[in-house]
Amino acid sequence: MKNKVSLKDIAQKVGVSTATVSYVLSKGENSGVSEKVAERVRQVAKELNYQPNQIAKSLKMGKTFSIGLIVADISNPFFAQIARIVEDEAKKKNYTVIFGSSDERAEKSWNLIKFLSNRQVDGFIIAPTEKSEDQIRYLKEEKIPFVLIDRHFPEIPSNFVETKNYESSYKAVKRLIDTGNKNIAMIAYDNSLHHMTERIRGYRDALKEAELERHEQVYKVSYDNIEADMKEAISLMFSKKSRPEAIFIATNSLAVSGLKYTEQLGYKVGKDIAVISFDQGEAFDFFYSPLTFIRQPLFKIAQKATEILIRQINSKKFINARISLEGELIIRKSCQIT
Amino acid sequence: MKNKVSLKDIAQKVGVSTATVSYVLSKGENSGVSEKVAERVRQVAKELNYQPNQIAKSLKMGKTFSIGLIVADISNPFFAQIARIVEDEAKKKNYTVIFGSSDERAEKSWNLIKFLSNRQVDGFIIAPTEKSEDQIRYLKEEKIPFVLIDRHFPEIPSNFVETKNYESSYKAVKRLIDTGNKNIAMIAYDNSLHHMTERIRGYRDALKEAELERHEQVYKVSYDNIEADMKEAISLMFSKKSRPEAIFIATNSLAVSGLKYTEQLGYKVGKDIAVISFDQGEAFDFFYSPLTFIRQPLFKIAQKATEILIRQINSKKFINARISLEGELIIRKSCQIT
Repeated sequence: MKNKVSLKDIAQKVGVSTATVSYVLSKGENSGVSEKVAERVRQVAKELNYQPNQIAKSLKMGKTFSIGLIVADISNPFFAQIARIVEDEAKKKNYTVIFGSSDERAEKSWNLIKFLSNRQVDGFIIAPTEKSEDQIRYLKEEKIPFVLIDRHFPEIPSNFVETKNYESSYKAVKRLIDTGNKNIAMIAYDNSLHHMTERIRGYRDALKEAELERHEQVYKVSYDNIEADMKEAISLMFSKKSRPEAIFIATNSLAVSGLKYTEQLGYKVGKDIAVISFDQGEAFDFFYSPLTFIRQPLFKIAQKATEILIRQINSKKFINARISLEGELIIRKSCQIT
Repeated sequence: MKNKVSLKDIAQKVGVSTATVSYVLSKGENSGVSEKVAERVRQVAKELNYQPNQIAKSLKMGKTFSIGLIVADISNPFFAQIARIVEDEAKKKNYTVIFGSSDERAEKSWNLIKFLSNRQVDGFIIAPTEKSEDQIRYLKEEKIPFVLIDRHFPEIPSNFVETKNYESSYKAVKRLIDTGNKNIAMIAYDNSLHHMTERIRGYRDALKEAELERHEQVYKVSYDNIEADMKEAISLMFSKKSRPEAIFIATNSLAVSGLKYTEQLGYKVGKDIAVISFDQGEAFDFFYSPLTFIRQPLFKIAQKATEILIRQINSKKFINARISLEGELIIRKSCQIT
């Protein structure tokens, strides 16, 4: 890269002091310097393509007006939409957002946290992966502001914004029971993250309350092997003597894959089998889709998380914000009473 | 943040020189220092939670093994999937990817480029916005490696990877003509970006070749006002005396919105009106969807762009790579011969 243009270069060309140039360029309109000089400084800065040294400037201000957002998988519409909303909200307060995906791997998440904190982002919004407890502890110890979304670790007190996972699951399964289903299966990710265990707990409790525990069956799918595991789960489910009348699916990515195999086996969702999914996808919102689902309050999750983070960045004291938001059951053909 | 642990801190605690500590921590196993001392240094570094100063380290190596990816909108599945593939490909070569979205605004794109280049990313993959020509010229002048995707500026020679926009559009519209449609409308974004003008040119030429120019009608929708503009375009289209038999839609986001309004007006896609869209969405790949579309070679676009960028980063000379890839017409019910 060629040498950067300095304040001195501009000062020499305009014939004023470096201090004047600095004053004009940092204060904008209200610099106290005559408008004619200020205009000339700005013009020369533009001609020379002057780039203020952001790192130096940031260190001086102690702030970079940037947020690191670490999601599990940016190609998942749930996270892609959250990312978009965080961006829009952050922009209103002049923050730049940079993203990375952890791909549900603690190692990748740690690399991103290190990379971005070494580059002085002011704080993080993170959907933490399994086994990333140490990373969260690290952020706390280093007093780096952060807010967790979607998941959190109950044993590590920290700010988070999530959907009411237990309650939403319970509500979905209760709907399946109320519409006449008894034999209800669940498909979930095979991990120990809090949001997932809460969704399973909601399913179990809804069955228990209706005295349907005998039908409890949770099929676990590995994040690294969705297609194969799902195919196996669906085949197994439909080959059982007492095949389920309904399926509750724990996430949108599992639902997309699960519905595909259900269809492939020749079963019609909403007719041969009732289905409710946690999470919406663009797919489910589309015109022919019959899927009933729990709508997570995406906008509120992202908006609250951004607001809390920026408040935390600007505050000297630790802010205590643990927010659980209502999920809404959107009823479509897949589990109507017919 | 608390003070960083330095090499000196570790050296003092172990009782060796700073040089020895640096040697052990930078060379790993083959440090030439006795294994016993090396082990002790690593242990103390871990105890003290030593974080090597990435920026200093990077400056020394002249590389940060990081890529900045700037897309138009991360919540658009086209870009979200590209982002995911770039990540996977970059990871194979030990590069970290950080993303930002420009939201189709040149100003936001420029902020991201400045922010990330000030933080020493090694190069960029960019889907450039309208009026960002100067940014591309800047990157060229500064010799910052970059590859454009999806769009490029023909007047500024640079590396790019794109879909064959003209040919793909032509193919789609020809399919509509071959299946008996004469009055074919197009819905496109109201912008001057090369990929968009090429898609429109493909539509026009297909009509011209079939001597159907008299039916040429391109409805333009603004990116900032999709819902309202689309509603107007669709209403206008269906209220015409000679209403179109078919619509060719220029992108997936326009298709999602366009199909919604078509349905709302009570017209069934594939029955009352033939539709082909450029781009797929998760939505279109879903089980009930009847939409015929041009499948862009997402994987190849992302993979090629990453490969070229990393080659460029590692090369002293400028690499010349301008790649246009075939789009595939995926035929579904929306434009079958019935």
